[in-house]
Amino acid sequence: MELAKKHDALVIANFEVATYLSWKGLNTHGMSIGGAYEFDFGKVKMIQAFHGTGMMTENNEIIYGGMPAGILFMAEGKTVYHAGDTGLFSDMKLIGERHPIDLAFLPIGDNFTMGPEDAALAAEFLNAKEVVPIHFNTFPPIKQNPHAFVKMLKKNKGTVLEAGESIEL
Amino acid sequence: MELAKKHDALVIANFEVATYLSWKGLNTHGMSIGGAYEFDFGKVKMIQAFHGTGMMTENNEIIYGGMPAGILFMAEGKTVYHAGDTGLFSDMKLIGERHPIDLAFLPIGDNFTMGPEDAALAAEFLNAKEVVPIHFNTFPPIKQNPHAFVKMLKKNKGTVLEAGESIEL
Amino acid sequence: MELAKKHDALVIANFEVATYLSWKGLNTHGMSIGGAYEFDFGKVKMIQAFHGTGMMTENNEIIYGGMPAGILFMAEGKTVYHAGDTGLFSDMKLIGERHPIDLAFLPIGDNFTMGPEDAALAAEFLNAKEVVPIHFNTFPPIKQNPHAFVKMLKKNKGTVLEAGESIEL
Repeated sequence: MELAKKHDALVIANFEVATYLSWKGLNTHGMSIGGAYEFDFGKVKMIQAFHGTGMMTENNEIIYGGMPAGILFMAEGKTVYHAGDTGLFSDMKLIGERHPIDLAFLPIGDNFTMGPEDAALAAEFLNAKEVVPIHFNTFPPIKQNPHAFVKMLKKNKGTVLEAGESIEL
Repeated sequence: MELAKKHDALVIANFEVATYLSWKGLNTHGMSIGGAYEFDFGKVKMIQAFHGTGMMTENNEIIYGGMPAGILFMAEGKTVYHAGDTGLFSDMKLIGERHPIDLAFLPIGDNFTMGPEDAALAAEFLNAKEVVPIHFNTFPPIKQNPHAFVKMLKKNKGTVLEAGESIEL
Repeated sequence: MELAKKHDALVIANFEVATYLSWKGLNTHGMSIGGAYEFDFGKVKMIQAFHGTGMMTENNEIIYGGMPAGILFMAEGKTVYHAGDTGLFSDMKLIGERHPIDLAFLPIGDNFTMGPEDAALAAEFLNAKEVVPIHFNTFPPIKQNPHAFVKMLKKNKGTVLEAGESIEL
């Protein structure tokens, strides 16, 4: 939020989070599942995910954060899918058919999201050209070996990114 | 709410919204996803949808409005589906197989819901005899041409309704 | 909660409910949809469900209870699925393929969850060896005949459990 304020950045989020952040003075664009919008920098489509969205406050309150979402980002002829935190779901097949995916970021941490086996199946469902594992090793219950995950991929290229590394499409 | 109180109408909603409105003195019947109930005027079945349900208060609070839903309404031998606000999902095929649909109201606005292309696919998934586009043109981010949408339908009759118009099944 | 405190039991729940209960002093393990975790007593995997999760307080407040969930429980070579409260969804096929199910607890009450017909289809989707109907007859809108449900099952063994009865796998 500090960063967004400093740079007067446009924050794109689901309607609930966008509204919440607009109350805090941020510049937001609210969307919801299945909706796409053409921005200056490319097109964003919000995709369903299966996960909780509670925002915990310092006063021990749970604020409802709207429907969980992943993001499709389309720009310069490429399509990137960030699954967000989610379990595996079959409509990943539909998403891959409707929007051929060049790069997918998929959670592999287990416990809170898909584990490596479900994520490998997700990669197959999505038919993504390249897959980068995310959401693991940040604390004990989601300890995983991303290199083992990449070896499980049959039809997708897998790439492990270290913090600070980038990828070119 | 004023109307419902004035006419002592029965408000059918998901459990959370029904409970919330009962606190305000309304006469409600709570349901949830997948559940059907036979009322005097016909049968209602609550269908999953993918959308946020936050109810924003004047005090900048977000009240959780339960799981998003569409509605199947069955009466006089006809079945009407109102998808609510939602993204496209493959179980629309299952819904159409379980409950042959005479008329479907589908959002086409994009940004917050399906856009025209996904909605045309939804109509095909549902195998609905007739489709009426909804949830568009009420404010700038969801500007759409409903007549262009109707032309995209391959196997479904499409009908654009103006405010105040009605349709006979 | 009294019982959990008395026995210092570990409460496994989605992240939101686990956090809420930890504020009340309980010992919790939070998870979310699609995530699995190996506990001392067996493995638990959290499965999507379609249902509301509002927790109603005595002060007429609705607390968001996270994403609705069912549970897969794997121990001693057996797999048990408790669907929770949910409507029918096609990914039950995927769950049954990924995790062959020995015993499934399925709601049949209708109104708030699947009714008997959708639950019979769920049993088929899951390809569960044995099915026990739950979530019915506890109050008027969900009155059902569990024995009639069991007769609807084509490929699954159905067992009606009375309160206090148990089943051996």
